[in-house]
Amino acid sequence: MPTFRISSDTFLGKAAAERLFVGAAPHEIVLPPSLATSALVRDVAPPSLSEIDIAFGQPDVASILASPRLRWVHLTSAGYTRYDTPEFRAAVKARGLQVTNSTGVYAEPCAEHVFAFMLAQARRLPEGLQSAYANGSAPWSKLRNSSPLLRYQRVVILGFGGIATRLVEMLKPFDVEIAALRRSARGDEGVRVITLEGLPAALALADHVVNILPANADSDGFISAARLAMMKPGAVLYNIGRGTTVDQDALARALHSGHLGAAWLDVTEPEPLPTDHPLRKAPNCFITPHVAGGHQDESGSLVRHFLANLARFSEGRPLLDRVM
Amino acid sequence: MPTFRISSDTFLGKAAAERLFVGAAPHEIVLPPSLATSALVRDVAPPSLSEIDIAFGQPDVASILASPRLRWVHLTSAGYTRYDTPEFRAAVKARGLQVTNSTGVYAEPCAEHVFAFMLAQARRLPEGLQSAYANGSAPWSKLRNSSPLLRYQRVVILGFGGIATRLVEMLKPFDVEIAALRRSARGDEGVRVITLEGLPAALALADHVVNILPANADSDGFISAARLAMMKPGAVLYNIGRGTTVDQDALARALHSGHLGAAWLDVTEPEPLPTDHPLRKAPNCFITPHVAGGHQDESGSLVRHFLANLARFSEGRPLLDRVM
Repeated sequence: MPTFRISSDTFLGKAAAERLFVGAAPHEIVLPPSLATSALVRDVAPPSLSEIDIAFGQPDVASILASPRLRWVHLTSAGYTRYDTPEFRAAVKARGLQVTNSTGVYAEPCAEHVFAFMLAQARRLPEGLQSAYANGSAPWSKLRNSSPLLRYQRVVILGFGGIATRLVEMLKPFDVEIAALRRSARGDEGVRVITLEGLPAALALADHVVNILPANADSDGFISAARLAMMKPGAVLYNIGRGTTVDQDALARALHSGHLGAAWLDVTEPEPLPTDHPLRKAPNCFITPHVAGGHQDESGSLVRHFLANLARFSEGRPLLDRVM
Repeated sequence: MPTFRISSDTFLGKAAAERLFVGAAPHEIVLPPSLATSALVRDVAPPSLSEIDIAFGQPDVASILASPRLRWVHLTSAGYTRYDTPEFRAAVKARGLQVTNSTGVYAEPCAEHVFAFMLAQARRLPEGLQSAYANGSAPWSKLRNSSPLLRYQRVVILGFGGIATRLVEMLKPFDVEIAALRRSARGDEGVRVITLEGLPAALALADHVVNILPANADSDGFISAARLAMMKPGAVLYNIGRGTTVDQDALARALHSGHLGAAWLDVTEPEPLPTDHPLRKAPNCFITPHVAGGHQDESGSLVRHFLANLARFSEGRPLLDRVM
């Protein structure tokens, strides 16, 4: 078996780093002098990839393009916006470089997060947790009678990848009617797949619209004023994709007017949203600070997922979560 | 078919009341002069049941015992504490009176409510929704890494009826390990059933303890200081049964000491809990005001459920949700 040199530019913590060193042996792990504190924020000089076979982390595009020895890039995120350009894709294809991401790590926490949003909305937890209404009082009766329940409702999912697949499993006991927007149906989705042509009709019926779109040229501002207007009065929008996919001013207006029942956002543009942003004051707008993918021992999960892929790479088998 | 006289003492609203009148025909519906605003709080004189065959609502025990013509009492609640005495049970049995409750109406909202609690806890929604941490900051990393995820965790359910049955269905996609406490196993629970002997061992392992016990002599103070101490450090307690089943002072101490990770309560004793109660200031104590059973058109659900049972009663078939 050939021995590879693997760079890791992600701060993993002691336990996960040890797991990486032990699990990757006999391959060699090369660390940069200092490490970023997060996979999403980088404040260190990129490590040189010139003598590297495999890059595990968030290597920058210029370094990848300048390193012909590199054969595989495994990203520690599910998003890969800055790599998703025609130029980079062309270069990658020409060189036979493989690019994988960590979708397998983030599907479970992201799906649990948006599912928690949906149930918190269905059960009116934000109001309930802040109230101390007396049994039988008018506001108590109003709150008690305000839950639509999640069961039997209609859900539209925008973007059908690993997160959506897992979300569909979680929704199964609730007998919801699901329509999923996907560029092209593969037939293995287990739910009704719609294309852009079918979207207006689906939006007009949906109680819940779950946006999992990645950031790219096609998705920029996808949740536009026009599409918000297509949504059923009282419908609820969820976003765990990327903030750029939503026209946030239009969303704030749709919440202020009461057209939308609520919005639950884990991603915004920018992050965090300034305290004076219209969405901060919009009624029924609930925001978490881009934590949907987080979970205990996230670094350990990233390493386990990478090692599983490293075994495949070593044996010449197809890689998991390949995006290019 | 015999024609019955049916009393209804519950305020249903116009639509549900019409549904009751239309659906119950040719049977006769008898209303009292004024109606309570809630199924749980009564401030009106009880209607006379002396000329009544079927009571739908919350008739008081004395009126039932004084009305030998009464053949069936259908309660508009899942709880039936005030009827659950040896004396009442004996009188009911001697007379051949049937007593049913509305468990079938409340299983879905109650299960959704406690499931929303569990996911909100797993995903740390209370902190996330109140924070605006910057990506990569220390508190952000801490929050991101704090979610244990719901998947693969251990759950103990105390009390196995309609709500627990539905909750088990909802938990299925999460591959959790469930142990359910039930007086005696029927064999159709679909999960491991334990008795009191097995409870300490189960509590020592559980990440989530879901209390659905009804209020009665056996359950009074069931979640005692001793049982709280048996729970695994960091475990989370949920209560959607009745407030009397928990030693609330002991719970407040277990939260203050950090032994318990959190408590999510829809029921307390009394309701609402006074603003100076120890639980109001206990860390990670989240309270909703007894709304778990609520949902849109609750009155309509109650009427539909009663009418389904009325059809069974008219045809001499076994009643749904019979408790005596």
